Amino acid sequence: MKSASLFVLPTFLLGVWCIGPAAAGDADDVEQKMTEQFNVRPIGWIKKADGRTTIVLKKKYQPGLLGLEGFSHVYVYWWFDRNDTPTKRATLQIHPSPPGNMKHPLTGVFATRSPFRPNLIAMTLCKIISVNNNVVHVEGIDAFADTPVLDIKPHVPRFDTAPNATIPWWLKRK
Amino acid sequence: MKSASLFVLPTFLLGVWCIGPAAAGDADDVEQKMTEQFNVRPIGWIKKADGRTTIVLKKKYQPGLLGLEGFSHVYVYWWFDRNDTPTKRATLQIHPSPPGNMKHPLTGVFATRSPFRPNLIAMTLCKIISVNNNVVHVEGIDAFADTPVLDIKPHVPRFDTAPNATIPWWLKRK
Repeated sequence: MKSASLFVLPTFLLGVWCIGPAAAGDADDVEQKMTEQFNVRPIGWIKKADGRTTIVLKKKYQPGLLGLEGFSHVYVYWWFDRNDTPTKRATLQIHPSPPGNMKHPLTGVFATRSPFRPNLIAMTLCKIISVNNNVVHVEGIDAFADTPVLDIKPHVPRFDTAPNATIPWWLKRK
Repeated sequence: MKSASLFVLPTFLLGVWCIGPAAAGDADDVEQKMTEQFNVRPIGWIKKADGRTTIVLKKKYQPGLLGLEGFSHVYVYWWFDRNDTPTKRATLQIHPSPPGNMKHPLTGVFATRSPFRPNLIAMTLCKIISVNNNVVHVEGIDAFADTPVLDIKPHVPRFDTAPNATIPWWLKRK
C-alpha cells in the first residue's frame, strides 16, 4: 500500500496543476471581488421651471459649492433613474444616435452615450449662469426634471479635452 | 358675528400663506427621497504592468466594447476606492490642487477634482492605443492599479468641450 500512496499523491498534485487554470475559468477574465458594489446617493436633483434649469443640492452639500463661480462650465453627473431596471442595465449593444437608429451600426454601449448601460451614470457639460446658496443655475441639461444628481465637477479644458480627437462616421455632423 | 367671520377667514388664510413655507422647512432645501441610493458595480479594473496601462473588463461586458476603436479618446469613470470611508465621503471643502495645498483657497469639492467627495466617482480622459477582446489599452491613467472601473464613454468634442471655458487662478498654469 505504501508504494500506491507514493504514486497517488504526486499524480493528484499533477492533476490539480494541469486542470487548475481551466477549472478556474479564462485566465484573461478578471473576476476578482465578484460581489463588489458601491453605493451612490443623490447630492441633489435637477429642477426645471419657468424656463430655468437648476441643480438644487441637499442643503447639507451647499459647502461643496464654494468657489464654483470661478468656473464657466461644469460636468454634471446624474443617474438615468428611469432606466434603473435589470433589463436596461444589462444592455450592452445598441444601434446608437439616437438609440434604435437602424441606420447606424450595432455598437457597444461603452462606445456610445447610451442611456441603457450597466451603471447608469450620465454626464453633461453645462454652462453655469449663477451659483446661489445650494442652487446652481445652468443654461440647460439633457435630463428630465427631478433627475438625481450624483456629482458636479468643474470643466478644466487641459484635463478634459483632446485636440483633434476622432469619432466614427455615425457621430459626425451631417 | 358675521363681520368677525369675514375678518377671521381671510386672516387665517393669510397666516397659512405666510407661515406655510417656513413650516414646511426651507423652501430651497429639496429633501425628497431622503433614503434614495443607487448601486454601481465594477465593469472591470485598471491594470498596470510592463509599462502598459489597460482596462480589463469582466468577460461578460466585452460586447460593450464593440466599435470603440472608432474613437481616439474615452472618458474612463472609476471609483476612488481607497477613499471609501464615511469620513472621506463627508469631505465638502479642501485646499485644492493638490489636496492640502494651503497656497490655494478653501474650495468646495464640487469646484475641484478632489478624490474626497460624497460620491467617489472619478473621471479621466484617456487616449486609446488598442481594443482587444475585453481589454482596452490606454496611454495612461491617474489611478492606482486594481482600481475598479464603473463605465467607459467615448469622448465627443462637441458634447464635452467648451471653447474659451474659464477656470480660477489656482488652476491656471504657472
